[in-house]
Amino acid sequence: MRNESQKDRPLVIVDPYPRDIATIFRPETMSVLSSHVHLVFSQALHMSDQELERYLPEAVAIIGQTSLPKERLDLAVNLKAVFNVEGNFYQNIDYEECFRRSIRVLNCGKVYARPVAEMALAMALDLSRGLTWNHMKFIKGEESYDLSANKDSRLLSGASVGIIGFGLLGTSLRELLYPFRCQVSVYDPWLPVSVIEEHQCRSCTLDEVLSKNEFIFIMAGVTKENQGFLSRREFDLIQDQANLILMSRAAVVDFEEFTRQLGTGRFKGATDVFPSEPFEKEHPIRSLSNVILSPHRAGGIPQAFFEIGEMVKDDLMSILSGVVPVRMQSAQPEIVTRLVSKPIKE
Amino acid sequence: MRNESQKDRPLVIVDPYPRDIATIFRPETMSVLSSHVHLVFSQALHMSDQELERYLPEAVAIIGQTSLPKERLDLAVNLKAVFNVEGNFYQNIDYEECFRRSIRVLNCGKVYARPVAEMALAMALDLSRGLTWNHMKFIKGEESYDLSANKDSRLLSGASVGIIGFGLLGTSLRELLYPFRCQVSVYDPWLPVSVIEEHQCRSCTLDEVLSKNEFIFIMAGVTKENQGFLSRREFDLIQDQANLILMSRAAVVDFEEFTRQLGTGRFKGATDVFPSEPFEKEHPIRSLSNVILSPHRAGGIPQAFFEIGEMVKDDLMSILSGVVPVRMQSAQPEIVTRLVSKPIKE
Amino acid sequence: MRNESQKDRPLVIVDPYPRDIATIFRPETMSVLSSHVHLVFSQALHMSDQELERYLPEAVAIIGQTSLPKERLDLAVNLKAVFNVEGNFYQNIDYEECFRRSIRVLNCGKVYARPVAEMALAMALDLSRGLTWNHMKFIKGEESYDLSANKDSRLLSGASVGIIGFGLLGTSLRELLYPFRCQVSVYDPWLPVSVIEEHQCRSCTLDEVLSKNEFIFIMAGVTKENQGFLSRREFDLIQDQANLILMSRAAVVDFEEFTRQLGTGRFKGATDVFPSEPFEKEHPIRSLSNVILSPHRAGGIPQAFFEIGEMVKDDLMSILSGVVPVRMQSAQPEIVTRLVSKPIKE
Amino acid sequence: MRNESQKDRPLVIVDPYPRDIATIFRPETMSVLSSHVHLVFSQALHMSDQELERYLPEAVAIIGQTSLPKERLDLAVNLKAVFNVEGNFYQNIDYEECFRRSIRVLNCGKVYARPVAEMALAMALDLSRGLTWNHMKFIKGEESYDLSANKDSRLLSGASVGIIGFGLLGTSLRELLYPFRCQVSVYDPWLPVSVIEEHQCRSCTLDEVLSKNEFIFIMAGVTKENQGFLSRREFDLIQDQANLILMSRAAVVDFEEFTRQLGTGRFKGATDVFPSEPFEKEHPIRSLSNVILSPHRAGGIPQAFFEIGEMVKDDLMSILSGVVPVRMQSAQPEIVTRLVSKPIKE
Repeated sequence: MRNESQKDRPLVIVDPYPRDIATIFRPETMSVLSSHVHLVFSQALHMSDQELERYLPEAVAIIGQTSLPKERLDLAVNLKAVFNVEGNFYQNIDYEECFRRSIRVLNCGKVYARPVAEMALAMALDLSRGLTWNHMKFIKGEESYDLSANKDSRLLSGASVGIIGFGLLGTSLRELLYPFRCQVSVYDPWLPVSVIEEHQCRSCTLDEVLSKNEFIFIMAGVTKENQGFLSRREFDLIQDQANLILMSRAAVVDFEEFTRQLGTGRFKGATDVFPSEPFEKEHPIRSLSNVILSPHRAGGIPQAFFEIGEMVKDDLMSILSGVVPVRMQSAQPEIVTRLVSKPIKE
Repeated sequence: MRNESQKDRPLVIVDPYPRDIATIFRPETMSVLSSHVHLVFSQALHMSDQELERYLPEAVAIIGQTSLPKERLDLAVNLKAVFNVEGNFYQNIDYEECFRRSIRVLNCGKVYARPVAEMALAMALDLSRGLTWNHMKFIKGEESYDLSANKDSRLLSGASVGIIGFGLLGTSLRELLYPFRCQVSVYDPWLPVSVIEEHQCRSCTLDEVLSKNEFIFIMAGVTKENQGFLSRREFDLIQDQANLILMSRAAVVDFEEFTRQLGTGRFKGATDVFPSEPFEKEHPIRSLSNVILSPHRAGGIPQAFFEIGEMVKDDLMSILSGVVPVRMQSAQPEIVTRLVSKPIKE
Repeated sequence: MRNESQKDRPLVIVDPYPRDIATIFRPETMSVLSSHVHLVFSQALHMSDQELERYLPEAVAIIGQTSLPKERLDLAVNLKAVFNVEGNFYQNIDYEECFRRSIRVLNCGKVYARPVAEMALAMALDLSRGLTWNHMKFIKGEESYDLSANKDSRLLSGASVGIIGFGLLGTSLRELLYPFRCQVSVYDPWLPVSVIEEHQCRSCTLDEVLSKNEFIFIMAGVTKENQGFLSRREFDLIQDQANLILMSRAAVVDFEEFTRQLGTGRFKGATDVFPSEPFEKEHPIRSLSNVILSPHRAGGIPQAFFEIGEMVKDDLMSILSGVVPVRMQSAQPEIVTRLVSKPIKE
Repeated sequence: MRNESQKDRPLVIVDPYPRDIATIFRPETMSVLSSHVHLVFSQALHMSDQELERYLPEAVAIIGQTSLPKERLDLAVNLKAVFNVEGNFYQNIDYEECFRRSIRVLNCGKVYARPVAEMALAMALDLSRGLTWNHMKFIKGEESYDLSANKDSRLLSGASVGIIGFGLLGTSLRELLYPFRCQVSVYDPWLPVSVIEEHQCRSCTLDEVLSKNEFIFIMAGVTKENQGFLSRREFDLIQDQANLILMSRAAVVDFEEFTRQLGTGRFKGATDVFPSEPFEKEHPIRSLSNVILSPHRAGGIPQAFFEIGEMVKDDLMSILSGVVPVRMQSAQPEIVTRLVSKPIKE
């Protein structure tokens, strides 16, 4: 099946479906990879079980969201790494078996961090300065030059900022905030105080983060335990005139309550995520005048997708050289079973 | 006219018209000032010539945009400083005479730098991610979740950025860009290369700044010499897909050409300033779909106005203590005659 | 053996010998730990095998440099983590078995990074300004105020800097260099280019790092493969007047050649590490006038030792809460077998 | 006297004595200058009064420490700027007359700021880690590897730092401290609180700075009013084990009291400046074992001198182009008469 020259190189299965190879690998990235490993692709859009199982015994790595129950892992006797070309760890892999065999399972959540952080900052600045709303008036010829129209505008510089969830998204946002010299408070129950303080933030309770800040960013991933943890009691804590920006997952908030509270006009909000996408056409949040809506566009930009390819290339090279991969996130025993992500639908 | 206790304190004339005292001085700032100097206000909205001339001989400082020709300065034998509570140096003062007598004339342009820089950043992020335009679709129920809708989105992080004019506005914007790790090119014919390099930017020609960057910010003040210096030849140099953000003064561009070029759709743009304000209701720029319009709202926000009061207080205290004022900008012989600013209209 | 109240809490074995409990745990740290777990100590200085094996079956964690061959791990059926209170991974643990069972083995190398980085910077500044040597002249009354005595002094600011080894020590040093705006080149064969560039450094070959920089810092750990990798050929590449600072491990250089080359006076050097410690009294490096010598004092300062206790506390709490420990370094399958560290001698 | 081609260019007198032209101007700097202006030098080491007065009527600028009483300024009818190639404003110029005529007098104190800041940092790190003292033991074969020998070592990272005097030297030091994340307190009676806070420092009283910090840096210039302002009462406030670093001018401390207090061993100290230089051979400070002594070497390094030439070139070009010079410091009416500096002795 493999010719002699191919046999000299380790075999790597490439099955990124539903992602597209050309979206994640620039030609030059692919060419570096090809010179080091023997890449096998499917004839079809998605690699068939048959093909897959034929390649598994020789494969040292899989690039894709391939299901890997125990039976398949048993076939894959040379497997060292599974590169999920997405941001999450899906529940279609027998992680226990992977840990037992020191097979690394990696995801590329990091590539979305900066794009999401930039969008979160864009939304915060937009809310606090009324950029979108004033543009909408301007194109209708209804703009006002009166400085009193600016009376609710405030600076992000020097403002109090709260961040809920201090993983990849939260820390990436924090980077962008340094020159603004905000006092940043963080709620993340998974992190020791010292790690939060290293980023020049204060570690706070959820209630403090909600009640004491002019800008609040929701950057927390969703787990089995934290679904809907931001609901009426929590929204009630938010200051008048605050700006609430929801970036990570709609499931962490009670979305109907979120809409209702924004509807009172007491504070302003922006969101990139929705409980269902496409989102209901008649949902009342669409008609609020103090909300900015974005149809899940924060992370998935072309530069992020190409960065996936770069990361896979770098970490595959590291693993084949026997050094620790440092770019993607490795699945960890403590956390992987808590997550609720499923593969993106096919 | 002044009672004994007032005479113990230096006399300061307060005549900030058309600004309003309560807009620029917080009560606590005013109270610190009052404990050190004897502030004299007008009964009327604007101090009459008569009142003014009665106070001038004793005044050590004037807070306002008061006309000060030679005849008045001759009356003001104790005058040490004139605090213009605006961002410019107006041509209603005999600066030569002030220099001759070491009377400081100060303006508070710095207070607008951070608000304008934040707005410039907001506009850049908005243009490059389509935040406003996608929100406008969303509220009409026409949003798209297809990632191909994101194909023109790009990061500011790592992008090439050009800044035209590297005074207070340009350097303040540069501060905010540090965590984005952009390669920043600067055109400012008034600055030596070393000063630009100190800010970790490259010094470039105007043509290089226009032709080589994905984001271009126009932050240059207007002088007698540079009016309309950005016109057809210059706009032709701009890259396809670039983002052009005009923040400082409409007079530095040929606005009709600016509109025409944006109209081709070749690059995107945002502006906070217009050749006339209020701006013509029928102007074609209002109907372009690749432009963000803001009715001169970038600088004049409440926090900026209160900062004027803080600066006046600090620098007046410094001058009375015989030390160099460090917060406001002092008029300099080389530059003051080149400027074309007039007092804001009354 | 354990009373009822103790049985409520997970059992943790504390056997940090030859470190001393009071050196690594502040009383308040110990008290937080004690309220969450049942700590068992030895009566003696070092826990006997007997004691140890009695506790192993119940232990969830071990704090110490305890030998853990397969037989002992087999006894430790509840074990989740081994906290080595040192900076390395020693070859007295069956790591394969630990990986198989997802038992974390952690070290606290991070606590030494900042102390070593500060010392490396101190040495670099001292070499480039002659601080120590001029002080030695001064106390003998032989100091010179003539500016020509300063002719070899140079700034670190703006200088070219090379770093060999970009792990904890190298990256911590890099942090301190930011305000100096050096061009920093890094050689680290274990890292992809992108990771080095993220720290605003250039990735270079070893020869480039040696030949092109005014300051060179050796921060590389020692592995089975890299012992003595800096020898005659490499030192010959170093620029005249360069400053060479050896911080990590003497074993990475050919120390006799290092001494010989410094003896020519062609470049200057400083070292904190020696092939044997205490170091030979008659070694020729002691008499060189262009070298600063420090008896392995860079890392082991009181604040570092207390930080070990803090890290153990934080990561033990994380593991018991079922979240990923983020402060200490976890042993990784790729690397742990390459290291040559042995437990510090008893 | 001037030929036709020379007459096309503005005349600039170059008389930097006792500085040497080759020390401050690199050949390429000199060549840029020469292509824009007609430089006139003395035949002799120092320009004679006669020569000087012959050139004065045509001169637009003087580079040097030339005496300029009213009579000479009256001759210099075209003079726009005097570039003192030193760090201070000397009392050999009629500043009043210069202000009256808008003749700029500039000094190049900035060039010493970074060199002094680096040396101050070197001294602080040396004191807190005992680098020099341990090296002195090492070369005598008396070094100790026992960690207890490190018991007084402390990190600068995270330490409390006080800075007395926040001009060019103090702010330059502050830059270098950012990655150390110290809490920095500043005493500078000439600055408003807001300016100190902009540098992320707290504004404090002198007593607070002295009593509350582990590292104290004296960076204050000397004026008519502050000579000897640090004396017994002030030194008594310093914490045990603190590190006191004197960088600016010996005249701001009572040097005998400084020596006496260091002699008690209660805190450690370093100094680069002395009441007389060369300093008395028998002074008791030379025999203290907790002090680092440096014979006024912090500022005057070759890179600083060449930077003077760069600054002069840049600012002269600016002035001739009619824009504000931004690199050197201009004499200011409030401060220039308070200073006590005299020209460096000839």
